[in-house]
Amino acid sequence: MRPIKVGLLGMGTVGTGVVRIVEGHQEDLSSQVGSPIQISKILVKDLAKQRHLHVNSEVMTENPWDVIYDPDIDVIVEVMGGIEPTKGYIIEALDRGKHIVTANKDLMALHGVEIMEKAKANQCDVYYEASVAGGIPIIRTLMEGFSSDRITKIMGIVNGTTNYILTKMSQEGAAYEDVLKEAQALGYAESDPTSDVEGLDAARKMAILATLGFHANVALEDVSVRGISNVSKQDILYAKRLGYEMKLLGIAERQDDQISVVVQPTMVKSSHPLSSVNGVFNAVYVYGEAVGETMFYGPGAGEMPTATSVVADLVAVIRNMRLGVTGQQAHHAYKEKKLKTDDQIAYKNFILLDVHDKAGVLAKITQVFTKFNVSLESVVQQPNPHNPDAEIVIVTHEASQSSMNKVLNEFNQLDVIKSIKSAYRVEG
Amino acid sequence: MRPIKVGLLGMGTVGTGVVRIVEGHQEDLSSQVGSPIQISKILVKDLAKQRHLHVNSEVMTENPWDVIYDPDIDVIVEVMGGIEPTKGYIIEALDRGKHIVTANKDLMALHGVEIMEKAKANQCDVYYEASVAGGIPIIRTLMEGFSSDRITKIMGIVNGTTNYILTKMSQEGAAYEDVLKEAQALGYAESDPTSDVEGLDAARKMAILATLGFHANVALEDVSVRGISNVSKQDILYAKRLGYEMKLLGIAERQDDQISVVVQPTMVKSSHPLSSVNGVFNAVYVYGEAVGETMFYGPGAGEMPTATSVVADLVAVIRNMRLGVTGQQAHHAYKEKKLKTDDQIAYKNFILLDVHDKAGVLAKITQVFTKFNVSLESVVQQPNPHNPDAEIVIVTHEASQSSMNKVLNEFNQLDVIKSIKSAYRVEG
Repeated sequence: MRPIKVGLLGMGTVGTGVVRIVEGHQEDLSSQVGSPIQISKILVKDLAKQRHLHVNSEVMTENPWDVIYDPDIDVIVEVMGGIEPTKGYIIEALDRGKHIVTANKDLMALHGVEIMEKAKANQCDVYYEASVAGGIPIIRTLMEGFSSDRITKIMGIVNGTTNYILTKMSQEGAAYEDVLKEAQALGYAESDPTSDVEGLDAARKMAILATLGFHANVALEDVSVRGISNVSKQDILYAKRLGYEMKLLGIAERQDDQISVVVQPTMVKSSHPLSSVNGVFNAVYVYGEAVGETMFYGPGAGEMPTATSVVADLVAVIRNMRLGVTGQQAHHAYKEKKLKTDDQIAYKNFILLDVHDKAGVLAKITQVFTKFNVSLESVVQQPNPHNPDAEIVIVTHEASQSSMNKVLNEFNQLDVIKSIKSAYRVEG
Repeated sequence: MRPIKVGLLGMGTVGTGVVRIVEGHQEDLSSQVGSPIQISKILVKDLAKQRHLHVNSEVMTENPWDVIYDPDIDVIVEVMGGIEPTKGYIIEALDRGKHIVTANKDLMALHGVEIMEKAKANQCDVYYEASVAGGIPIIRTLMEGFSSDRITKIMGIVNGTTNYILTKMSQEGAAYEDVLKEAQALGYAESDPTSDVEGLDAARKMAILATLGFHANVALEDVSVRGISNVSKQDILYAKRLGYEMKLLGIAERQDDQISVVVQPTMVKSSHPLSSVNGVFNAVYVYGEAVGETMFYGPGAGEMPTATSVVADLVAVIRNMRLGVTGQQAHHAYKEKKLKTDDQIAYKNFILLDVHDKAGVLAKITQVFTKFNVSLESVVQQPNPHNPDAEIVIVTHEASQSSMNKVLNEFNQLDVIKSIKSAYRVEG
């Protein structure tokens, strides 16, 4: 049978993995799809660059249009990343009837709707399993494995860099800045780590997962984001003392079709399966009304894990081509998007206060909680080992975000409180 | 659009869940498949039985042929279980062009090849996600999510009953018999628990997973099985002391296309993600050459979780019907099956010996290991608190099964050893 010809946009880490798998597993892949798979053109940044992997130089080009306009190419695998010019290439390729496999979370989070519509109009497939949680097939799981269920909660550790940093901070009592530097030296963090540590990368992935899980078009701007750059050694110490691990969690929730999606450092109860997901590993916890609790765990990034997902998508697209059913991907966002207000978002809170150590402080503080109807699970006042003041550690019961905002606003004006040192969501 | 008509064989726990989901999620399901789904006939054992769920009595029948021969029925959902007469019904249904969704691990493990061939010959689909690990979409994951990878190891906690028993034994220091009785009272174990506690249920599931993961037809008789009925309180205590949890693991391994599949109580290192899978939960750990370590966790049984998988399969079949691509399931077992010999299966071992407490005992014992080239990770001799003898606790490095068999045989003849109290595989 005629080989399926693939054009590869990008020959960085993931692109190299894709070439390795397609070449190394060729026999298995052909057995599954019924024909050889051939990577016939590769867009590279620099033809002269030395590569670990030998690739026939005739296959490589620095001109994207050599790949996109090649009439023999059936599928474009996009692993170059970024929004532009990548989006333009994908749209052009779709207009030429080429199917797309992409690992590009930024593009799918920001322009997924437009790209899927363009694909449908051209009877093309667009698969993007590798865009979220690297080697974990979570997109398939939400689309197919749980197609029958009503998913009400998705909690994800979907950024390996921040999970590596928080794990190190927790296991070694290290400070954020030190671990970040170490992560950069090891290649786990970028030289500009903003997108990872400020939660933007996780937010993009959560927008994609929430869209699939809740069947409504959740956009990036619908995700409320807070990163880990202000998480202190002390916060992690307190978390552990109370039986929690600090994790950067993406949390997407639905109640009666009202949705909220947040990314924020969260204290996760140590009995919860997400609490023991360490290092650069990712995990996605899914709660469905019928299925209950499930969790999917694996490597969230890296050459070979991400390439596994890319090539699995390639296999799926080729099967669809063989069966003549491309361009038939189910329309997932068939529901109107309704976002929760701050009144409707509720969770437990951890609060650490630095207070003046004098009589009546605790009474004044608890009065504020009472005023806004927030009930408390535990309150501990203790001397601050570093200065003459005291610290108060509070864990609330579930309280609405709007009530908590009012509590914290009032705290800012309360003379007995020197500062609100930390406030975190608590889960599990 | 004309509703898709479904015939349901069996209205026990899972069948009831299927009716609940199809009725309760009708709007979501129709949005996904493009037409209503109607359960138009249900085979029940006893029409007169009182049911929790109201079902129109005209829909129910005690005659299987009312369902199977009904020309309006498109898909048969089989949740009655057992080999015969179930297999006969499925074959008859396939011969009438009806697609099958089944939760029947016994049938798929024993007659999967024949059933899939019959399906292909009739251009029909057979989906069986619910047959392994209830609500965890592990079959899809192996077939599609990891289609690009070469899987080398699958380790599963795939039987909830035994995991419940071992968890209770570990957490409460309870004896096997006591926990089994409690599990029976709670409905977590059958009145005849043999199939669960002796590992047969897990073996069937592992045969299915190994077939999908390794692309070779692994039969039930290829799986070497040992149950948990001889696991003692003491074994679990020693495991914990050494940093392990006792789990009934199914372990399927492949090296250079040579396969081994076992089910046996195994000491799992407490840092391994499988070690913290507790109670009736299931989990499947998959190692792929490219993707590395992954794990899939969720409820392994129960009305709603299992029904979630059944109805997800139903959605998949109906999508295939709409696209006109039924009977096109990929042929997964395209490789010749080659089983490992005992020389080729190697793992770490835990051994607990009851010995006469006299000089030279340890020397005699270690000589036997040396004779058969088994090296040791740790040896601890200690007084037995219950009698005047001593206990020796040994953990070996990785050793072939044949060498270990020779060691244990020689131990049986060694006069210094009173008894081999336990021997377990060690993982992680």
